[in-house]
Amino acid sequence: MHYGFAMSLLIVHVQVCVKSESVEAFKRATSTNAHHSLQERGIVRFDVVQQEGEPTRFVLVEVYRDANAAALHKETSHYRVWRDLVAPMMAEPRRSLRYSNVAPEDGGW
Amino acid sequence: MHYGFAMSLLIVHVQVCVKSESVEAFKRATSTNAHHSLQERGIVRFDVVQQEGEPTRFVLVEVYRDANAAALHKETSHYRVWRDLVAPMMAEPRRSLRYSNVAPEDGGW
Repeated sequence: MHYGFAMSLLIVHVQVCVKSESVEAFKRATSTNAHHSLQERGIVRFDVVQQEGEPTRFVLVEVYRDANAAALHKETSHYRVWRDLVAPMMAEPRRSLRYSNVAPEDGGW
Repeated sequence: MHYGFAMSLLIVHVQVCVKSESVEAFKRATSTNAHHSLQERGIVRFDVVQQEGEPTRFVLVEVYRDANAAALHKETSHYRVWRDLVAPMMAEPRRSLRYSNVAPEDGGW
């Protein structure tokens, strides 16, 4: 399979709101997914942050080498395990926005 | 001056919408500010990303060693120059949210 990284970085911010009783389980499941995701060749960063004063709100900050890497991520077993584990924890649908990098330039991440 | 990093990381996401005629000038000014900010001891990351399909929308992803580092950043000359440069470029007031890190742990950033 051809797997190059000719394109630009793709940054995805996923906004998550979980049920209050699911906060700790979501943190555990998502930390595990982040750890495995960082082993993927196409993933530069996979950060999980929790909003101050709103502990049910999280952002996943995912940095992919290109759009192809983002598609491949969704085919991994760790992604699918995570997706199914957290499905019943969601208080509202996840919202995802895509970005390109202004700074640093591609080599600086 | 005492300057320790005993506390946890502080992550700040700043949502920005600029006037369409200011997109390129905002990118230049903000890249310069990001470059200088990364020289601060208390700043771990300072990323600038532009939304796909909405080129007037940006997010600044700022990772500080602690809340004190975030306060010190606002006293720097590069921050003040940036703040004054971009003030007339804003299409709407900036919105800033604060987060703590779930993953990676503090040492992994």
